[in-house]
Amino acid sequence: MWKTGISKIEPNHIVTRGYRQEDLIGSVPFASVFFLLLNGKMPDKKEAQMIDALITSSVDHGITPPTTHAARLVASAGVPLPTAVAAGILAVGDVHGGAIEEGARILQEWVKIGKEKGWSHDMTARELLKQIRDSGKRMPGFGHRIHTKDPRTRRLFDLARDLGFNREHVELSVAIEREFASKKALPINVDGAIAAIISDMGFDWRLGKAFFLIGRVAGMIAHVYEEMTSEKPMRRMCTQETEYDGPWERPPDK
Amino acid sequence: MWKTGISKIEPNHIVTRGYRQEDLIGSVPFASVFFLLLNGKMPDKKEAQMIDALITSSVDHGITPPTTHAARLVASAGVPLPTAVAAGILAVGDVHGGAIEEGARILQEWVKIGKEKGWSHDMTARELLKQIRDSGKRMPGFGHRIHTKDPRTRRLFDLARDLGFNREHVELSVAIEREFASKKALPINVDGAIAAIISDMGFDWRLGKAFFLIGRVAGMIAHVYEEMTSEKPMRRMCTQETEYDGPWERPPDK
Amino acid sequence: MWKTGISKIEPNHIVTRGYRQEDLIGSVPFASVFFLLLNGKMPDKKEAQMIDALITSSVDHGITPPTTHAARLVASAGVPLPTAVAAGILAVGDVHGGAIEEGARILQEWVKIGKEKGWSHDMTARELLKQIRDSGKRMPGFGHRIHTKDPRTRRLFDLARDLGFNREHVELSVAIEREFASKKALPINVDGAIAAIISDMGFDWRLGKAFFLIGRVAGMIAHVYEEMTSEKPMRRMCTQETEYDGPWERPPDK
Amino acid sequence: MWKTGISKIEPNHIVTRGYRQEDLIGSVPFASVFFLLLNGKMPDKKEAQMIDALITSSVDHGITPPTTHAARLVASAGVPLPTAVAAGILAVGDVHGGAIEEGARILQEWVKIGKEKGWSHDMTARELLKQIRDSGKRMPGFGHRIHTKDPRTRRLFDLARDLGFNREHVELSVAIEREFASKKALPINVDGAIAAIISDMGFDWRLGKAFFLIGRVAGMIAHVYEEMTSEKPMRRMCTQETEYDGPWERPPDK
Repeated sequence: MWKTGISKIEPNHIVTRGYRQEDLIGSVPFASVFFLLLNGKMPDKKEAQMIDALITSSVDHGITPPTTHAARLVASAGVPLPTAVAAGILAVGDVHGGAIEEGARILQEWVKIGKEKGWSHDMTARELLKQIRDSGKRMPGFGHRIHTKDPRTRRLFDLARDLGFNREHVELSVAIEREFASKKALPINVDGAIAAIISDMGFDWRLGKAFFLIGRVAGMIAHVYEEMTSEKPMRRMCTQETEYDGPWERPPDK
Repeated sequence: MWKTGISKIEPNHIVTRGYRQEDLIGSVPFASVFFLLLNGKMPDKKEAQMIDALITSSVDHGITPPTTHAARLVASAGVPLPTAVAAGILAVGDVHGGAIEEGARILQEWVKIGKEKGWSHDMTARELLKQIRDSGKRMPGFGHRIHTKDPRTRRLFDLARDLGFNREHVELSVAIEREFASKKALPINVDGAIAAIISDMGFDWRLGKAFFLIGRVAGMIAHVYEEMTSEKPMRRMCTQETEYDGPWERPPDK
Repeated sequence: MWKTGISKIEPNHIVTRGYRQEDLIGSVPFASVFFLLLNGKMPDKKEAQMIDALITSSVDHGITPPTTHAARLVASAGVPLPTAVAAGILAVGDVHGGAIEEGARILQEWVKIGKEKGWSHDMTARELLKQIRDSGKRMPGFGHRIHTKDPRTRRLFDLARDLGFNREHVELSVAIEREFASKKALPINVDGAIAAIISDMGFDWRLGKAFFLIGRVAGMIAHVYEEMTSEKPMRRMCTQETEYDGPWERPPDK
Repeated sequence: MWKTGISKIEPNHIVTRGYRQEDLIGSVPFASVFFLLLNGKMPDKKEAQMIDALITSSVDHGITPPTTHAARLVASAGVPLPTAVAAGILAVGDVHGGAIEEGARILQEWVKIGKEKGWSHDMTARELLKQIRDSGKRMPGFGHRIHTKDPRTRRLFDLARDLGFNREHVELSVAIEREFASKKALPINVDGAIAAIISDMGFDWRLGKAFFLIGRVAGMIAHVYEEMTSEKPMRRMCTQETEYDGPWERPPDK
């Protein structure tokens, strides 16, 4: 016997989170349906606009990220479209998309600590970074290997401000960025922005990768389709020189 | 050297299908961004509403379909959320979501044949079904194991009519349904409806599974999260009686 | 530029871990080639027999474990064989196969601690269990939901003794079992046995899931093939009653 | 209710294909257990040696094939080992490993046709190639992008001859190679060799990808472990220059 709070399926009657599906289809935007699925309640207008922006911000970053790269590579081996997209999703890991989850976890933990201690956000940021550095780790969601001023971050934070989601988690993020800047600039990246905003929207940090995942699936479908229709199978995908640093060829044992 | 018509990535500058991402985020609904990604052009208002409805119609059908079932099962083994969702996507196959792809392929082929021959849709439907039956196959996208009148199909067709996407492929579908009804009712199911409508919107049938996939990912994320947060790991997921019909236990050889 | 210590590929010349592949094929048993791949050196006779036994012990436990269950479920949706097997592999997680990895990690850590402290294995076992209990966790690799005396464990330990791999990690495992028995019997299961033996063979605990994985792939291939050739697609795989405990159906908002 | 001819699981009693698992572990080589799982019967000595050679011949071809490439790429994103290996398996597709399946299908079909017609293998090879060419396809399992004389093929065929598996399917393969040579040399590659030999061993062609898959899993585990332990996460895996051939950046609509 299964138990679920999400779906009720009966003949000619499909209910999701309490809504008949025919009342959702074409009446509630897909991003809001996603919010409803995660949250169990319909978003208000501001939440609806914010969630839509969040998932769009992850759709595409070209071919080189492991997600899209893996999806195209696997597509080139002659598999069905969903198989290639799934391979790409498997690359949503601790260092690719994972900064949203871990970043949100840390922000949620330290906003709570800061409140209990009665600290300012700047004070909390300092303590937080000190502890992360002492444990030999890095704060996820800051810095980017290509962008120094990620246009997606700026846009998301502008929206968050306009819609009222620039609350304590966004503020703590900005305080962390300030604290970094006092030494070496390490601006909030798009993962860090999503981490802060979903925290201010009240989402559990364990859903962090989900926002990236659903957006990126849209982009990967386009890339897989382009690969299937425009490129040769098993093409050489990159300079394939390999340096062998293992043992020299040995005579067979015995 | 990669080549792509989808993305241009430069420092602080991310362009997708010709649009700066900061101009898409929060300004263009996610479903329209998905359309843009697939099509290379922005949808008009009617296309935007239709594509949004199409992907919402696949979000959720409870736990029992192989997608959601596999995702929850794999989640129960203690893996990261994206790994569980990917397992569910792998179940988007020829008989689960595949009716959209194969249905669209057949409709697109026969609309063309019908036109060349100058046939009515009823005539085309008859010939099409005859040939499918003769080859021992079944027309995908008709009939459902639970629903006799799928509320999603009705809703999608109403929208298609209102928005002007009830063209020759939808008409051929309805003619096929009529032809079935003359013998044994086998109503268009939600896959069949999507197949017809995306064909009338001008999509390549090879993208058929993509519409189902992106919608279902939203539902699977909710189900995986519910599994991770509400259920015990490795729980018994269903009556697990197994009947062994292999050989009787043998003494070891030798 | 890639760098690898595993393979050197040149025209008509394939070298793996220093051996020409034509010298491995048909001359070195597959399980030994697996050992060579992981270790970079050829196993001696005892290692060769032990590794073969270890990977065989994971091949099959019927349909109900998440691996095999997921593989058959996904196969029933009409996907290629490798896609279904991959879905099964995704279910090798923290609570399914993961006891090998985590168990080996703990054994390797505490054998070292015990040595430094000059403790007996019984003493180490007591301290180890105390600390695990205090942290609210459970010792992985002990107890089984079906077997009280797993025949695979017994067989593996007998072999380990005969081949000389019952060293300090196996001894610590047995001491833990003894310590459990003084309260409530919780015998070493097959995962626990593999964890102890690979530790005594000198393997890194981070390879723990690999031994289970490669064995289980063999079993899953057989199950997927059986599913594809003997069962109907999309069959109902288990009692599919679902209890909905979400909100009652609501009138659509607005 | 499940039904299976593979496994019987009862408390303290695990039977696979009629054998108690404790009688298989450490007594029957893993490759023979794989044969048993697929076939339902224990291999004889010759079958045991041949199957072992077959699966070893697929273990490793360096980093550049889509399987291993995808596995390392996904590993670099910070996911568990099984997740990365699964991504690699997803790349076992129609043009990567698939030549075994499709090659075996064609050989099995044409050996039958040749017999019915009373043709020589040379005659059958000519007709077969003519028909494949006429349909615009290519014979899978011949030619290699790197090797002109694949050392694995030679070794497998030598073993097949010594063990008596060079029967009609191997003979037809050799006849096809001869027929190619009369125009342009296109030697049997390792996939073609496996396709021919498994056909002479009596395996269903639908299992073709399975032999490649299980071997390659061994190699991928080693490569994933090397990636996890020797390389930086999210490293740049190849020259990542991308040429954008999409539309020029447009002003946002509206």
